Amino acid sequence: MNETPRWLTPAEQRAWRSFVRMQQKLQGRLSRRLQADSGLSEADYTVLVELTDAPDGRRRFLDLAKAVEWEKSRMSHHITRMTKRGLVTRVECPEDGRGAFVVITPAGHEAIRAAAPLHVEAVREMFLDHVTPAELDMLGHLCERVVDRLDAPSHPAEQVESGA
Amino acid sequence: MNETPRWLTPAEQRAWRSFVRMQQKLQGRLSRRLQADSGLSEADYTVLVELTDAPDGRRRFLDLAKAVEWEKSRMSHHITRMTKRGLVTRVECPEDGRGAFVVITPAGHEAIRAAAPLHVEAVREMFLDHVTPAELDMLGHLCERVVDRLDAPSHPAEQVESGA
Repeated sequence: MNETPRWLTPAEQRAWRSFVRMQQKLQGRLSRRLQADSGLSEADYTVLVELTDAPDGRRRFLDLAKAVEWEKSRMSHHITRMTKRGLVTRVECPEDGRGAFVVITPAGHEAIRAAAPLHVEAVREMFLDHVTPAELDMLGHLCERVVDRLDAPSHPAEQVESGA
Repeated sequence: MNETPRWLTPAEQRAWRSFVRMQQKLQGRLSRRLQADSGLSEADYTVLVELTDAPDGRRRFLDLAKAVEWEKSRMSHHITRMTKRGLVTRVECPEDGRGAFVVITPAGHEAIRAAAPLHVEAVREMFLDHVTPAELDMLGHLCERVVDRLDAPSHPAEQVESGA
């Protein structure tokens, strides 16, 4: 940090704090509901969604960690726990040197198939029902833009992190 | 769940997934930057902000957990760790039966004072610099509305959780 910090304006501070508070509330409520309805943690659901979306229900361990921005150690511990519960398996790939795959199991497919409609209903009740179509459209575009910038390798934040 | 699930429309699904992805990316990046810049975890920062905002830098343990939607066990473990690092203290209140206070220490004040400008800069770089004033205004209002609904005791989500 070589520069004077650009402090937030009152409007920026108000919006950012509301956004942080909403994330806390929504994540807390949705994860408790998911656990109560389906016996899955938010982390379980996150991993199962990523694998369900991937070809053949499998992703490289490191790609999976990067996609959801978890530290490797966190992903490793979590995959170990999910493996013990039969929701995913690890498949080693010694021939190409690019590391193991994580693969969703039939039990994992069944778990997310059963959880999804209940989770969707909770997302509606807690969030979507209170957002207008115009707001949702704006939010979607805003989120895509921010994700694109965070994923861009030339983003200043990435450079700082690489050097940290 | 007695009803057929109201599945998401393509527009809803796209926006919701972008929002989930952005939360993952932004939380992951901001928390790594915070740790690298200031030696604080996202959880530390969350607790310190809540205490800094409270009168006399203190909040009831249960109010603190509720404000950020953490399970009591998670908050208890985290406050124990922060106490060992000297960032907060617990003050028991045997006379009123309403439970202990968590209080920020001078070292806790110093930690957040040092971390805040770096965190604000990261929030700008990773998020605010990519959001227009109109979008930010809309986002703030949307978030306040959703938080108000989640905090309202008559919200259906609350009833389901209470019965779970």
